[in-house]
Amino acid sequence: MSSSNDKVSHNVYFDGKVQSLGIETEKGPATVGVMKKGTYVFNTSSLETMVVISGTMRTKLSGGDWLTHKQGDSFEVAANSSFDVMCATDVAYICYYS
Amino acid sequence: MSSSNDKVSHNVYFDGKVQSLGIETEKGPATVGVMKKGTYVFNTSSLETMVVISGTMRTKLSGGDWLTHKQGDSFEVAANSSFDVMCATDVAYICYYS
Repeated sequence: MSSSNDKVSHNVYFDGKVQSLGIETEKGPATVGVMKKGTYVFNTSSLETMVVISGTMRTKLSGGDWLTHKQGDSFEVAANSSFDVMCATDVAYICYYS
Repeated sequence: MSSSNDKVSHNVYFDGKVQSLGIETEKGPATVGVMKKGTYVFNTSSLETMVVISGTMRTKLSGGDWLTHKQGDSFEVAANSSFDVMCATDVAYICYYS
C-alpha cells in the first residue's frame, strides 16, 4: 500500500533558489537542502542546527556578526529568530529541528 | 535578472520516494538527495561517488556483495552500471558525478 507519507517532502523558497527535502533522522526531523548563490533571510520556529555539506556560507544571527561556515562546520540558530545568509557559491546543508 | 538557471534543479524518482537537488560543487556537479525506506535499483551513466549524510544504506554493486554504508562513509559506482540499494530508514546522501 502506498500513501503520500511514502514520498519525500519537497520545499521551495525564494523562487526556487533555495529548495529542501524532508528526512527523519536519528536526531529527529531534518531537511537536506541546496541554496544557490545569493543572499537570503530565514525565520526559525524551532531551534535549528545547521551543518554545511558542500560549499561555504556566511551567516549573521540576530544581534551578531557575520560568521563563515565551511564544509563540515555546524552552527545553531535560536527558535523564533531570523538570520541572514550569504552564499558566494552553491551550498548544500542539513538542518536539524529540535 | 532572473532565469531558470537560478533555480535549484529537482529530480523525482520511484514515485517520489527518492528525490534529489542539483548542486555545483568544487568537485563538480553533484546531487543531494533523500531516499525513503525501501529498495531501489539505480543506473549510472557516469562514475558516481556517493557519501552518506544521514542514516545507513546497504548497496550491492554489479557482481558484488551487499555492503553497509553508514553516515560519513563513501563508495564509488562505475559508469554505465546498475546497483541495488536497501534503506531500512530514511537516508540522505550527496552524489558526485565525474
